[in-house]
Amino acid sequence: MINERMYELGSKRSVIRELFEFGRKRAAEIGEENVFDFSIGNPNVPAPDEINATAEKLLDTLPSPAAHGYTSAQGDADVRSSIASYIEQAFSFPARASELYLTVGAAAAVTISVRAVTSSPDDEVIVLAPFFTEYSVFVGNAGAKLIVVPPKKPGFGINFEGLEKAITANTRALIIDSPNNPTGVIYTEDELKRLGRLLTEKEKEFGGAIYLISDEPYRDITYGKVVPYVPKYYPDTIVCYSYSKSLSLPGERIGYIFVPSQTYDAPKLYAAVAGAGRSMGYVCAPSLFQKVIGKCQGLTSDLSVYRTNRDLLLGMLREIGYECVEPDGAFYLFVKALEDDACAFSERAKKFDLLLVPGDDFGGPGYVRIAYCTSTDKIRRSRGAFEKLFADYRK
Amino acid sequence: MINERMYELGSKRSVIRELFEFGRKRAAEIGEENVFDFSIGNPNVPAPDEINATAEKLLDTLPSPAAHGYTSAQGDADVRSSIASYIEQAFSFPARASELYLTVGAAAAVTISVRAVTSSPDDEVIVLAPFFTEYSVFVGNAGAKLIVVPPKKPGFGINFEGLEKAITANTRALIIDSPNNPTGVIYTEDELKRLGRLLTEKEKEFGGAIYLISDEPYRDITYGKVVPYVPKYYPDTIVCYSYSKSLSLPGERIGYIFVPSQTYDAPKLYAAVAGAGRSMGYVCAPSLFQKVIGKCQGLTSDLSVYRTNRDLLLGMLREIGYECVEPDGAFYLFVKALEDDACAFSERAKKFDLLLVPGDDFGGPGYVRIAYCTSTDKIRRSRGAFEKLFADYRK
Repeated sequence: MINERMYELGSKRSVIRELFEFGRKRAAEIGEENVFDFSIGNPNVPAPDEINATAEKLLDTLPSPAAHGYTSAQGDADVRSSIASYIEQAFSFPARASELYLTVGAAAAVTISVRAVTSSPDDEVIVLAPFFTEYSVFVGNAGAKLIVVPPKKPGFGINFEGLEKAITANTRALIIDSPNNPTGVIYTEDELKRLGRLLTEKEKEFGGAIYLISDEPYRDITYGKVVPYVPKYYPDTIVCYSYSKSLSLPGERIGYIFVPSQTYDAPKLYAAVAGAGRSMGYVCAPSLFQKVIGKCQGLTSDLSVYRTNRDLLLGMLREIGYECVEPDGAFYLFVKALEDDACAFSERAKKFDLLLVPGDDFGGPGYVRIAYCTSTDKIRRSRGAFEKLFADYRK
Repeated sequence: MINERMYELGSKRSVIRELFEFGRKRAAEIGEENVFDFSIGNPNVPAPDEINATAEKLLDTLPSPAAHGYTSAQGDADVRSSIASYIEQAFSFPARASELYLTVGAAAAVTISVRAVTSSPDDEVIVLAPFFTEYSVFVGNAGAKLIVVPPKKPGFGINFEGLEKAITANTRALIIDSPNNPTGVIYTEDELKRLGRLLTEKEKEFGGAIYLISDEPYRDITYGKVVPYVPKYYPDTIVCYSYSKSLSLPGERIGYIFVPSQTYDAPKLYAAVAGAGRSMGYVCAPSLFQKVIGKCQGLTSDLSVYRTNRDLLLGMLREIGYECVEPDGAFYLFVKALEDDACAFSERAKKFDLLLVPGDDFGGPGYVRIAYCTSTDKIRRSRGAFEKLFADYRK
């Protein structure tokens, strides 16, 4: 009687969760400081002081129903105006309040977007491996088919040959995230131009819209490289954004969907986004934090520690002899396992209390993901463990 | 290419929304004070002072990642313990943290519950008319079939004859909400006992679980009558609760699902609930407000104004000659239209700037819903309009 697929989704612990639980157990045995848990992408940097100050000011000044009442389903109008202004100013790209739909985080944004553009079990949604594991869940929720384009090694840029082959008359959408989770790679302007051309050609060939869902939770965490604004390179783009990582607010669940007016059938698509949100019980994004982020546009946490951590970890692992994908952004390092089976490698790393997530679930077998949103000191102290693991394979 | 059903859900303005927009327009023309907008169930009572005080204290004392970071998907463990203790104390019913799953409000709770217990287009979910309109959307989202049991007039208690006929081998769940939206009726202990017996018999007859989803956003708004605790009368109950109305926090989106251990296949059901939440992109309920409500168990807004409003409105309308269903709780009054077509009646009421929602979408044609979560003064001043409307039908 119980939905078996839902049961499986809820009961099968993710590998990340398993590692996390193992880490908790080990920490109790040998002390927190001796467990090198790189499994979870939970920002360790505090939110900027302005966040709490803004929240408290709103609580002190707004009448209760204005602070805590329902907003319209698409989000508070002033907040959407403020985001639209920021998009115009930051990316020199036209945006209006009426093109924005506030969401309960980026996960909701992607789930809703996929649902809005698919309607049949034949509909296909493409992802480029390696990809954020939950995309498969969200595509499954819409009842559509997930098509995985194999990774392009060693740089993990866009695999155009693979993508071209993957696009069919049933393709409804392609999801990308740049900076990428799990590799940290940022797609270049040239890649996005080529992507735009390819998708436009394929739209003509098959005579229908192919929506590009650009999932951008890591947009603001970069190490020098620019993250091009995707809608500039392809009109039929839907932008999904979240404040989880840039403002260290992952638990507050606040983000948005942007359907630019240039997007094919934009007003209808925007309405379908609202309908998809409604159908899944998303009444509105959390009210107080809508207003907080409305007043904190352009602000970020102090993200510099992620760069410090990246440089330290990358230098250290390369010195030891590991083969790493250099991350341009986000806070993940994708490292080649020292044997073909990344799961076995991750298991062996546990002997040294190193918790590394095998890339298999991300569609990147043979690699492990290291989340370096942890203390710099812990990364420094993990050197011995990485050395021992490396030596263990040289025995 | 765009999902037509989602488009329709997002673009077809609800009757309530239409009335609300009409009200905005009229307010601009003749002044806010002259429009008697009884369309929307948005609490007008402020949240208790303790809510903002608790939020500010948490913001001032918790480290940022503890205040704003991800909680586990089922919700913060301490918060769930605090809710479990409250349930035990308030309802003398056993509850554990591990049986609670925090949700982004009651809409999410009901959507997730329905999704967890249905898996095929043949699966049926029963509602008792009149019912909260969005149930049809949430059942549609799960791809299941909505079965509507006709209302039992004039008292709008449970229509047992209709319900018995509606239950088939395909019945997976029955959704009830007591106090009811739109009638305000509370099901009595006797009714719940009889309901429990009927469902138990039918489970035996068809050899499978029939889950009773008890949606309880109005549990704390009552006028003397007790709201019996539903799981005491039928083991296979799932409780959906929200703090939206009791604490006047509808925009903060915070509620829970309670799967008591007595419920058939409870651990599997709980896992399916978690899986359904995950599949729809619900990562966790908003972090700060999880912790706020964890510290404010048992607290409510000053709900006394709703009683004042009910007594005033009920007395006034009866005096004029309207036939009303006496509400035991919630903040809605269900009133018989003065002609068979409640939509035409609602339209005629607009002439007097009275905004009343026709019951048709609630499965209660021939009636209108009056949301009296508005100022007492406005209700008092609306008397003339109600009198004119009544006289208009006597011409």
